[in-house]
Amino acid sequence: MSAIETISESRCFGGMQGFYRHESTACNGAMRFAVFVPPQAAQGNVPVLYYLSGLTCTEENFTVKAGAQRVAAELGLMLVVPDTSPRNTGIAGEADDEHFGAGAGFYLDATQAPWSRHFNMYSYVTQELPALIGANFAADLRREGIFGHSMGGHGALTIALKNPSRYSSLSAFAPISAPMRAEWPQRAFARYLGEDRETWKPYDATELLKQQTFPGTILVDQGDADPLIGGLRPDLLEEACKAARQPLSLRMQRGYNHNYFFVSTFVEDHLRHHAAALAS
Amino acid sequence: MSAIETISESRCFGGMQGFYRHESTACNGAMRFAVFVPPQAAQGNVPVLYYLSGLTCTEENFTVKAGAQRVAAELGLMLVVPDTSPRNTGIAGEADDEHFGAGAGFYLDATQAPWSRHFNMYSYVTQELPALIGANFAADLRREGIFGHSMGGHGALTIALKNPSRYSSLSAFAPISAPMRAEWPQRAFARYLGEDRETWKPYDATELLKQQTFPGTILVDQGDADPLIGGLRPDLLEEACKAARQPLSLRMQRGYNHNYFFVSTFVEDHLRHHAAALAS
Repeated sequence: MSAIETISESRCFGGMQGFYRHESTACNGAMRFAVFVPPQAAQGNVPVLYYLSGLTCTEENFTVKAGAQRVAAELGLMLVVPDTSPRNTGIAGEADDEHFGAGAGFYLDATQAPWSRHFNMYSYVTQELPALIGANFAADLRREGIFGHSMGGHGALTIALKNPSRYSSLSAFAPISAPMRAEWPQRAFARYLGEDRETWKPYDATELLKQQTFPGTILVDQGDADPLIGGLRPDLLEEACKAARQPLSLRMQRGYNHNYFFVSTFVEDHLRHHAAALAS
Repeated sequence: MSAIETISESRCFGGMQGFYRHESTACNGAMRFAVFVPPQAAQGNVPVLYYLSGLTCTEENFTVKAGAQRVAAELGLMLVVPDTSPRNTGIAGEADDEHFGAGAGFYLDATQAPWSRHFNMYSYVTQELPALIGANFAADLRREGIFGHSMGGHGALTIALKNPSRYSSLSAFAPISAPMRAEWPQRAFARYLGEDRETWKPYDATELLKQQTFPGTILVDQGDADPLIGGLRPDLLEEACKAARQPLSLRMQRGYNHNYFFVSTFVEDHLRHHAAALAS
């Protein structure tokens, strides 16, 4: 395992907010991530909550905008926030499209050249990053939860549904719930995974729910003034959960948009949802 | 009075976070500011709390990073956050120095050409902006408080000390307390105000305290791991308050830095400090 390099560490709500860099095997290059270590970690290993960010974001957006550290410090949760993709891979045109490439890894393992050499965020988030966290921080890897926003909500839903015994808790803010039925995720999936749509199904929450449920209620907040709602399709998530008898708490939030003013308003509810499952 | 133009408005903690632009008379050009309107404003005018930001900041930093809206929504406070200076004035070299010019207005009225034509943040913050807020938002201008960070802490201290009957409450995070005794503020003051140091004294909190006190306890938080502490001089603020019999609650915060991970940790205490004074 590669060493991690500290970019910065700042005291925050009695804990420590750090930004780090390391050489990733899964993504074949440098990756950044943020970790908030709550004060309780001084007394022993604490549960880990992974947050996956949306298109164009880095590990910074949630970390500086959501105000989650206050609640994580109270509840004793470690917050781990990866970047949304590899960057500076050298692949031509990597940063030309805000829906594909840099900032848009979609939390999948690409199978198509040249992307497959670097864009393996599924393996990165489920394997390499947790191992790195376990080796370098006071993390209890038997207690992991996962959540995310928009493309990161898609990531959290699909990763947890594919690993239902691994994660104890799951939630999302305005997730892309049915990427195979929205235009821009389809374009990305075709380039990462090829034209055979069967290979896309493991990365679509509504498809996964036909095979698999999650052992716990999925909490989802969605603003009803979100301009992207037509591509997010909370209605299809609700339908798929109903068909699968998957407990879902889908809360339509009146007047809220897609941004971090929305996320910050409801992040406390999400952390309490996770803490309740991770406490045991 | 000029009209205000809405840049964006987002629902946040049941209130509304807006960003606005207008043509400023005091600064002779376009200025931006942010306003959080708490849910209580639907029932009547609410107290106004002005936040002044530090060097290089805009109206965005505090608004997206501090997490203050949660507490303001609970307490019924309107948060008004101006930019830190005029920008794009056309003055040559305006943005070449992070300690002077764009992003570094120091909350004073410049007397030296060419700066005096635009850099009049003292008049802007104390007169033009409040009038604009009163005309466009459900603000009770008989109940105003002021606080700020770093250069903005200097702004809050000097503005409130010069107008002690105007503001009901005052606090600061890591303020520049004695700008006449720190190297980089002196360079800025010389260019904005000329070489006669007598004219600088109305913009130095420790000098003002020789003439004037504030009718209430000043709350100040300061990280003891703040790398700028040698230029901020909380020791001189403490000394000046003691000599003036000015009540001061100076809290040295162990291990905290100068950034918004520090501000966000203590912003709730500051809002409660202000709300207690503004409630009456």
